Amino acid sequence: MRINKLKEAAIKQNNPGNWAIFNANNITYLTGFQGAAALFIPEQGENVLFVSSVNYEQAKAEVRDIKIQLLKRGENLMAQIAQQHTSEKKLSVDTLPIESWQTLTKAVGSEEKLEANNRLIRNLRAVKDEEEVKFIQEACRIADRGIEAAAQTIKAGITEKQIATEAEYAMRRAGSEGIAFETIAVCGTCCAYPHGGAGERTIKEGDFVIVDLGATYQFYRSDITRTFIAGNPSQKQTKIYKTVKLAHQKALENIKPHILAKEVDLAARQIIEDADMGEFFVHNLGHGVGLEVHEAPILGPNSHDQLEMGNVVTNEPGIYIPGYGGVRIEDTVLVTKNGAEKLTKAAYEP
Amino acid sequence: MRINKLKEAAIKQNNPGNWAIFNANNITYLTGFQGAAALFIPEQGENVLFVSSVNYEQAKAEVRDIKIQLLKRGENLMAQIAQQHTSEKKLSVDTLPIESWQTLTKAVGSEEKLEANNRLIRNLRAVKDEEEVKFIQEACRIADRGIEAAAQTIKAGITEKQIATEAEYAMRRAGSEGIAFETIAVCGTCCAYPHGGAGERTIKEGDFVIVDLGATYQFYRSDITRTFIAGNPSQKQTKIYKTVKLAHQKALENIKPHILAKEVDLAARQIIEDADMGEFFVHNLGHGVGLEVHEAPILGPNSHDQLEMGNVVTNEPGIYIPGYGGVRIEDTVLVTKNGAEKLTKAAYEP
Repeated sequence: MRINKLKEAAIKQNNPGNWAIFNANNITYLTGFQGAAALFIPEQGENVLFVSSVNYEQAKAEVRDIKIQLLKRGENLMAQIAQQHTSEKKLSVDTLPIESWQTLTKAVGSEEKLEANNRLIRNLRAVKDEEEVKFIQEACRIADRGIEAAAQTIKAGITEKQIATEAEYAMRRAGSEGIAFETIAVCGTCCAYPHGGAGERTIKEGDFVIVDLGATYQFYRSDITRTFIAGNPSQKQTKIYKTVKLAHQKALENIKPHILAKEVDLAARQIIEDADMGEFFVHNLGHGVGLEVHEAPILGPNSHDQLEMGNVVTNEPGIYIPGYGGVRIEDTVLVTKNGAEKLTKAAYEP
Repeated sequence: MRINKLKEAAIKQNNPGNWAIFNANNITYLTGFQGAAALFIPEQGENVLFVSSVNYEQAKAEVRDIKIQLLKRGENLMAQIAQQHTSEKKLSVDTLPIESWQTLTKAVGSEEKLEANNRLIRNLRAVKDEEEVKFIQEACRIADRGIEAAAQTIKAGITEKQIATEAEYAMRRAGSEGIAFETIAVCGTCCAYPHGGAGERTIKEGDFVIVDLGATYQFYRSDITRTFIAGNPSQKQTKIYKTVKLAHQKALENIKPHILAKEVDLAARQIIEDADMGEFFVHNLGHGVGLEVHEAPILGPNSHDQLEMGNVVTNEPGIYIPGYGGVRIEDTVLVTKNGAEKLTKAAYEP
């Protein structure tokens, strides 16, 4: 049970005690259930999941081995948490918005009794167990179907939205439970915007088209990007594409346990800098993927993370030239015992 | 410009001063741009939008009349905000997670110099202007197409996921830019779970089927629910359905400016209580809809909100009987000068 993992990790850090978990994804990670208001984990004794009446019957039917406490209308959740926290030690809290933190402070009496600690659970979530990998693999398999549908749709005269429409439909038919994030389908000069959405723009002959999408399965996500060309590439387009592809390959070769995440970023970044386009690689190489599409570890020049077996990360170098266009190539990758395994497998060129 | 609305509202509350806005939807509301890290609004002088390199070029191209400040890799956003805040007055902050709040506290020197105030912008956002209503109307029109597609798909033998698949595809083809929230399509006894998702369950003859979905348009959302019956309803099903429908009608008749939101909830709740099913109406009557699918005002028994012209709210009574099933009927509704206008218009019975 993942709650025990959290307790063991706290003990290892010489910081055992009670926990109050409020972040929705952290609660799902620890309980498998989505839709609770809070999870109280005492150092000793019974775990308590606070659920309002709207999700109470579902929680009772689906959650095992955790006490389900109905949070009645008008009841103050923070007062309930404070009532559970009878220990003299500080109450560890994963995260809260400041206004709720202030309410909890009042409920427990003083801010001295609280400790904000999102880091422990962040790091636990960064290392996926077997079941999580299975779910992400399925989300990746579905995302591949989305990319294939996009590849079949793209041609001059089609709008960006039409690409997103067909890609999402294909993912749904392949079993997706929703989208991992807002689908990006951009063409032409808008490829210079890494987060460009999918609009009414029409693809023109010779345009770059970037498609970045993900599926969800059992609450877990995937993330993949392919860049297409509507027609025949120019020499400049070919050079940009090949540079990104080489950076992507280089990063993949470097992904393995114990390497510093920033070194993987650097391996890819160096390729792009060597091609005199370093200034156009305007984001990190990658990020963890799991219950959230952006989670730990971070693969970027300023990251302090070290890769571990069980991390699932994106490898997504890109080059974005303002007024011209851009290329990004991205896979979701599992860190294995000795290296890396690509979980997204769609063809790079259609 | 909506930034000026915020300043004027602050002056009305005798609390003028500098603002730092961090919530992504609040920033979109005030600037029209999605993807900035923070917005600094000084009492006097130039507004500053902080954007990291990944979205910098897009911000420069799309944002007018606000200074765009590149947040370079490794730069501390909170230190930048503190540098802008040269006033002796407190810095008003919309909201922040506790760990970021602590970083900002260090940057400005003391928590005394900060004031958490999400309420002002929450209340501004609750009253939609003409442009916002137009966007929500379009999102509602698209959601109607999703419900129609669901109605055409539903029959015994179909899975919940297939309904969600066809409904989302129809919304995309009608111009949706994504989904407003995870589509709910549940059948049979799972209709007793208000937030049940859309799974692999197969519809059986005589099942209730609840479909709850929404579209997005220009970042604005819609929210609609219809309950269908696969086949001929039983007497009990008819009684439940008619009770919810009457509660829905009663609520709509009560929606108008100046009424207390809890009175509208009560009007619907009374109908369900009179039918001896009050215990099964396990959630609030409704909520505001805009950039987020759940925002102000709240229509529930504990709400302190009062309705105003320009509010866009849901009207969604429901009855959920554990082990049996449930019914919810929901529209997105605009509060007008003298009453209410339904923005979602799909037929109630197919």
